Amino acid sequence: MAELTCLVLNCTLKKSPAESSSELLGSQVLDALSDHGVTGSMERVVDHDVRFGVSTDEGDGDAWPALRTKMLDADILVLATPIWLGQPSAVCKMVLERLDAELSETDDEGRMLTHGKVAGIAVVGNEDGAHHVTAELAQALSDVGFSLPANAVTYWVGEAMQGVDYLDRSPTPEKTAATTKTLAAHAAHLAGLLARSPYPASS
Amino acid sequence: MAELTCLVLNCTLKKSPAESSSELLGSQVLDALSDHGVTGSMERVVDHDVRFGVSTDEGDGDAWPALRTKMLDADILVLATPIWLGQPSAVCKMVLERLDAELSETDDEGRMLTHGKVAGIAVVGNEDGAHHVTAELAQALSDVGFSLPANAVTYWVGEAMQGVDYLDRSPTPEKTAATTKTLAAHAAHLAGLLARSPYPASS
Amino acid sequence: MAELTCLVLNCTLKKSPAESSSELLGSQVLDALSDHGVTGSMERVVDHDVRFGVSTDEGDGDAWPALRTKMLDADILVLATPIWLGQPSAVCKMVLERLDAELSETDDEGRMLTHGKVAGIAVVGNEDGAHHVTAELAQALSDVGFSLPANAVTYWVGEAMQGVDYLDRSPTPEKTAATTKTLAAHAAHLAGLLARSPYPASS
Amino acid sequence: MAELTCLVLNCTLKKSPAESSSELLGSQVLDALSDHGVTGSMERVVDHDVRFGVSTDEGDGDAWPALRTKMLDADILVLATPIWLGQPSAVCKMVLERLDAELSETDDEGRMLTHGKVAGIAVVGNEDGAHHVTAELAQALSDVGFSLPANAVTYWVGEAMQGVDYLDRSPTPEKTAATTKTLAAHAAHLAGLLARSPYPASS
Repeated sequence: MAELTCLVLNCTLKKSPAESSSELLGSQVLDALSDHGVTGSMERVVDHDVRFGVSTDEGDGDAWPALRTKMLDADILVLATPIWLGQPSAVCKMVLERLDAELSETDDEGRMLTHGKVAGIAVVGNEDGAHHVTAELAQALSDVGFSLPANAVTYWVGEAMQGVDYLDRSPTPEKTAATTKTLAAHAAHLAGLLARSPYPASS
Repeated sequence: MAELTCLVLNCTLKKSPAESSSELLGSQVLDALSDHGVTGSMERVVDHDVRFGVSTDEGDGDAWPALRTKMLDADILVLATPIWLGQPSAVCKMVLERLDAELSETDDEGRMLTHGKVAGIAVVGNEDGAHHVTAELAQALSDVGFSLPANAVTYWVGEAMQGVDYLDRSPTPEKTAATTKTLAAHAAHLAGLLARSPYPASS
Repeated sequence: MAELTCLVLNCTLKKSPAESSSELLGSQVLDALSDHGVTGSMERVVDHDVRFGVSTDEGDGDAWPALRTKMLDADILVLATPIWLGQPSAVCKMVLERLDAELSETDDEGRMLTHGKVAGIAVVGNEDGAHHVTAELAQALSDVGFSLPANAVTYWVGEAMQGVDYLDRSPTPEKTAATTKTLAAHAAHLAGLLARSPYPASS
Repeated sequence: MAELTCLVLNCTLKKSPAESSSELLGSQVLDALSDHGVTGSMERVVDHDVRFGVSTDEGDGDAWPALRTKMLDADILVLATPIWLGQPSAVCKMVLERLDAELSETDDEGRMLTHGKVAGIAVVGNEDGAHHVTAELAQALSDVGFSLPANAVTYWVGEAMQGVDYLDRSPTPEKTAATTKTLAAHAAHLAGLLARSPYPASS
C-alpha cells in the first residue's frame, strides 16, 4: 500500500532563521515516524502569510490554502507549538481556526475531508503548560475530524519559573525521547488502520 | 469476531434515583452504539463508594476496583458528565484520577492495559462548558492510553445563564441527536480496528 | 481625583467595517462604565498591524507600542473576544502574548507597570465557551499584573450547535445586560480603590 | 480596624497524617500573610466529610456547612491544590462546586456573601499544570464573587515527567518563595481595601 505521510506545522512565534525549540521537537517526531516508514515535512507557519479567519481561503494572498493542500495530502498532522502564558501560541490558535473551516467541507459521503487523518501534538516551553496545551489541541483537532492515537503527545517543559530552552537541553531528555517514540509508533499504526479502513459514511 | 462492548460512567453529582441529564445522554450513546452491534451498560459513579486517589485500589471498601474491572473488560469507555462552573464534575475528575493509575499498569509488551480501548465523551449542562469539558477529558484519556475517534464528543448546553435541563428539552435537539450518532459510528469503527490490530509493543 | 479611564481591545478576527458581536458587547461595557464616571474607548486589534511576539516592541512598523501606550494610560483594560472552537480568538491570544512582556517592565519600586490596573472580560459566541475563555484570560491577566474584580466577566452564548450571533439577538438578553452592569460597577469600584491606594512596593 | 483573616483549604487527595506538598505551600502562604498582619488557619478538606453537590448544605452529616462558616468568616480564601493529570484535584473541584451555591446567597443589597473577599491560589505538582489550575480556579472564584489581586498565584512544578515532590525540594525554590511573598502582599492589600470599602449594592 501507499506510504504514509506526515505534515508538521511548527507554530513558533519567530520567523526563520530564528532558532525554534518547537522545530527541534517537531523534527524529532519526524525522525521517529520515519522508523515506521512515514515520510514527512515541516512548515514554519509564520514564514507564510497566513491570515486570521475561519474560512479555507481568506483571499488576497492568504497563504493558508497552500498549507491546507499539504495538510489534506498528509495522513498525519502534527502541531508543534511553544507554550506562552501556559497556553498554545497565538499562531497555533490561528491554525486551529483555519482548520475550523473543515467542519463544512465534506465528501460525497458526508464525511469531513479530514476524517481518516490522525493528529499528533508536540509541545515545548521553559516551564509549565504542556498538559493544558494538549487539552486545547486534542479537543479542537477531534472537533475538526482528526483521530487521536493513545498517548497523542510528546513534550518537554522545565522546572517552574526557570528559563531553560529545550534547544539548550542537550542531550534530549530521556523521557521526552521515549515519549516521542511512543507517539510516532501509535500515530503511524492508527493512520495505517484508518487509511485501509476509513470511517463509514454518515447515514 | 467477538462483540464489542461499552461501559458508560455517569459522573453526575446526584445519587440514584435522582434524575440525571448525563444519564439520559449516556443512554442515548448506548442506543446509538447498539446500531453498530456494540453492547453496553452504564454505572452511576456516585452510587458506588469510590475513593479519592491515584491508585488502582485505595483499599478499605473502595468501589473503584469493581468499576475498573468493568472498564478493563470493555472496548469503549464513555464518560458522561454534567458541567459545573464550566468544568467537568468533581466526580468525573475523581474518575480521571483513578484512571491515572493505569500509567503504571502495563502488559508483557510494555503497553498500558487501556492501550486498545477507545474513549467517547458525553457532556450536558444548562449552559456553556462542553468544549472545555471535552478538552479536559480528551487530554486525560489520551494520557492514560485511550484512543479518540474523530468527533469524539456529543453534547448539549442551553443559552447563556438560562436554567433548562437536557432532561426537560424534549424532543432531543436534532443536532445533538445527529452528533450522538456520529460519535457512536466512529467509536465503534475505531474500537473494531484496534481490537483486530492492537498497537505494537513498545521497544 | 482624576477621572478613571478604560480601554477595550476588541479581539474579533474581522477587520473594520465588518460587523462584530464583540464590538457590540464591548460598547455595552463602555456604556455601563460611563454610569460610574469612567470614560473610555475601544480599539479593534486587527485594524492595527500588531505582530506576533512577546516583547513590548517587535520593531519594523509593529502597531503594538501605540496600543500599549493606550493600555498603560488606562485604569481598566477590557478584553472583548469572540469564541472559536470553544477558545479565545487567536487575536486575543496574540494580545495576551504582547502583555507577557510586562513581566519584565517594572517601576522603581519593582512593581509591574500594570500593577494598579483592573481587567474585565467580555465574551461572545454562537455557542459554548465563555467560561473557558474567561479562565484563559483571568489567569493570563492576573499573571501580567492586573487585578480582577468579583464577577469579572460578561458574556453571551447561544444554545449548543446553533448559529445565532449576539449582534442579531435583539433586544440584548436581560441576564447579559445585568451581568454587564455588575462587571462595570465592580471594575470601576476596584479601579478607584487601587488608583487611590496602590499595591505596596516589592521588598 | 479589625485584623484581616485567611482560610486556606488544602485540597490534597490524602487524609491526615499523610504528608502533603499542598500543605507545605499553604503554610508558607499563611506565614507570608502574617508579615502583613493577617492571621489564618488551614483545613485539609478530605479530613472532613464533605459531600458532592452544589448546595450550601447537602444534609445528613455533610461537613461543608462548618467549613463554609470558616470561609464566610475569613477575608481571604486560599485554595491550595495538587495537580493531577495537569488539572486541579477532584477535591478542589468539589470545593468549587460547593462554592457555586454562593451564586444564590445574597445580602440585603443583592450582593453575594463572598463579595468583599479576596482569593489566592497555591499550586504544586511533580510537573506541569500550574497555569491551567490557576485558570480553572481564577475563573470559578471570580464567578462566585471573589476578587483576585494582581499575581494571585504561587506555585511550584518540576521538570517534565520527573517525580520530585515539593516537600522534598529543600530549601524552598527561591522563585516560588518570592512569588509567595508577592501573593501575600497583594492579597492582604486588596482585602484591606475591600474590607474598608465594599462593592456598591446592585441596583
